[in-house]
Amino acid sequence: MVDLWHHGDREVGPGLVDLAVNVRLAEPPGWLLAELTAELPRLAAYPDTTEATEAVAARHSRSTGEVLVTAGAAEAFTLIARGLGARRACVVHPQFTEPEAALLAADVPVSRVILRPEEGFVLGSVPEDADLVVVGNPTNPTSVLHPASRLRSLCRPGRVVVVDEAFLDAVPGEPESLAGEVVPGLLVIRSLTKTWGIAGLRAGYVLGPSALIDRLRAVQPPWSVSALAAVAVVACCRPEAVKEADELAVAAEADREFLLAGLRDLGVSVYGEPRAPFVLAEFHDGARLRERLRERGYAVRRADTFPGLGPDWLRIAVRSRPVMTEFLTTLNELT
Amino acid sequence: MVDLWHHGDREVGPGLVDLAVNVRLAEPPGWLLAELTAELPRLAAYPDTTEATEAVAARHSRSTGEVLVTAGAAEAFTLIARGLGARRACVVHPQFTEPEAALLAADVPVSRVILRPEEGFVLGSVPEDADLVVVGNPTNPTSVLHPASRLRSLCRPGRVVVVDEAFLDAVPGEPESLAGEVVPGLLVIRSLTKTWGIAGLRAGYVLGPSALIDRLRAVQPPWSVSALAAVAVVACCRPEAVKEADELAVAAEADREFLLAGLRDLGVSVYGEPRAPFVLAEFHDGARLRERLRERGYAVRRADTFPGLGPDWLRIAVRSRPVMTEFLTTLNELT
Repeated sequence: MVDLWHHGDREVGPGLVDLAVNVRLAEPPGWLLAELTAELPRLAAYPDTTEATEAVAARHSRSTGEVLVTAGAAEAFTLIARGLGARRACVVHPQFTEPEAALLAADVPVSRVILRPEEGFVLGSVPEDADLVVVGNPTNPTSVLHPASRLRSLCRPGRVVVVDEAFLDAVPGEPESLAGEVVPGLLVIRSLTKTWGIAGLRAGYVLGPSALIDRLRAVQPPWSVSALAAVAVVACCRPEAVKEADELAVAAEADREFLLAGLRDLGVSVYGEPRAPFVLAEFHDGARLRERLRERGYAVRRADTFPGLGPDWLRIAVRSRPVMTEFLTTLNELT
Repeated sequence: MVDLWHHGDREVGPGLVDLAVNVRLAEPPGWLLAELTAELPRLAAYPDTTEATEAVAARHSRSTGEVLVTAGAAEAFTLIARGLGARRACVVHPQFTEPEAALLAADVPVSRVILRPEEGFVLGSVPEDADLVVVGNPTNPTSVLHPASRLRSLCRPGRVVVVDEAFLDAVPGEPESLAGEVVPGLLVIRSLTKTWGIAGLRAGYVLGPSALIDRLRAVQPPWSVSALAAVAVVACCRPEAVKEADELAVAAEADREFLLAGLRDLGVSVYGEPRAPFVLAEFHDGARLRERLRERGYAVRRADTFPGLGPDWLRIAVRSRPVMTEFLTTLNELT
């Protein structure tokens, strides 16, 4: 039985190099820390997401009615599970398990489509009667980016398609994004957590047609987005921040290519084309390898908790080249 | 039609003395700001409420299984509305409207018991078949404190009684609290928002039998409590903080008595015995008075959005004696 509630943060431990959690920065950048620090003395006021909503709308050229700021992508999944009244949800796996967990917690029946590694995790068909389809782009943990045209083609009357773009700001130029498009029945989820080192703050948002956004807003607890998260959303939607994110994405892409080349040299199998700042790979005796990596000081993410993958699969977060170099040396010694 | 979604934070405006919002401190105390500031560089890690849960358990002499840390009391109401499967909820009014709003958002049918001012808002009977009863203690906006024995007597098999103690740490000695008691079917909600000036941070918790807490935990989105809220919970549960809260409560009590004496001198009607750091009063032509107070620089809370109260009712937050003195002078000129 797959543990849908297992997440990478549980694998990190003292003294371990963290290649398990998909948060790129070790701490928030200075400009963001400064804005958060300035907000602390104002915390007596209740949170207000008006400005954050406007910032998101401007960043993606949407109207404010098409934006819902949330306490991270995790809250967005819960609101989708609670607010849309879906009866035949379909989750495209392997992917982040939280959407399915949120649907099950809301008593929504879920079917699974499992993409196959030998097909490069390409997005195939989903059940025709599915009234809610959840797909990640790029997908965690496969790192595969689906074409926007394929995602658009999943939409039809009576169905909501949810595209989790939590990692898309970590792909240079944000290709295949649907964040700026009004597509009937399509919701896009974004997170600020990964790029900006603020997983602890809980900041994300949903974009979509205003009628759908209204239904999510109706089930969102009041003030669920903290004042600090709202400040972070405003700060991270500024053009300078978006530009900086893209530069980080370009650097991560180079680091990922370095990691991939090293894995290839070791004969490790990577399926599909990784586009996100993490790599999913299949190893010989992966479960044992993961234990031995821990003994050598490296925490990588087990992937057997993702439906469709087994114990030989491990997810490796892309870090800087020096870290990757040492990791590859260790990996070479162990394989 | 009563607007259940109206809250005091909407009444505050630039340049107005805020007597509308029930947050006592203008900003978090220095020791709390210092702890929050120290946490900011660690925000890259996902939130973990383990330590906060232990701190709450220790503060109320409960086991950790009897504690759920939440993103403010507002999230607690949503989890209760979603997680317990209630079918005949009863909300005791006048009270904070968020519990009823959360129940309605979760499609739980709600009946109302309206306590009567001329009876001092004393807690009477509730429908025998109610499977969920929500009552505030002390109640917002009446400021009335119900006896713990009366609340205990509401409990019976097949019913969950929710006591919202969001303001009880603002009553010296926390009389009539059920936070430290294991009563079958009884949940206690606490907030850190009001006393510590951190409404923007969203920090609260629920106490109750572990079987009930488990059901709330099952519907709580992952990481819904931010890392900063978790830090605040730990800090505010320390014995020094609890002692400081009690000292603030004693000071607020003196300020409230001062305000009450002033209102009495003006012939203003207050029903029941106010025990919280706010006072509910009935004025002649209250709606007009509220407008005129705004023109004179004072924001007080309209109370006609609370079921059972009309436009003549206003809620006044207790502030320091100098602020109260000037307010009473203005009030005298207007009445």
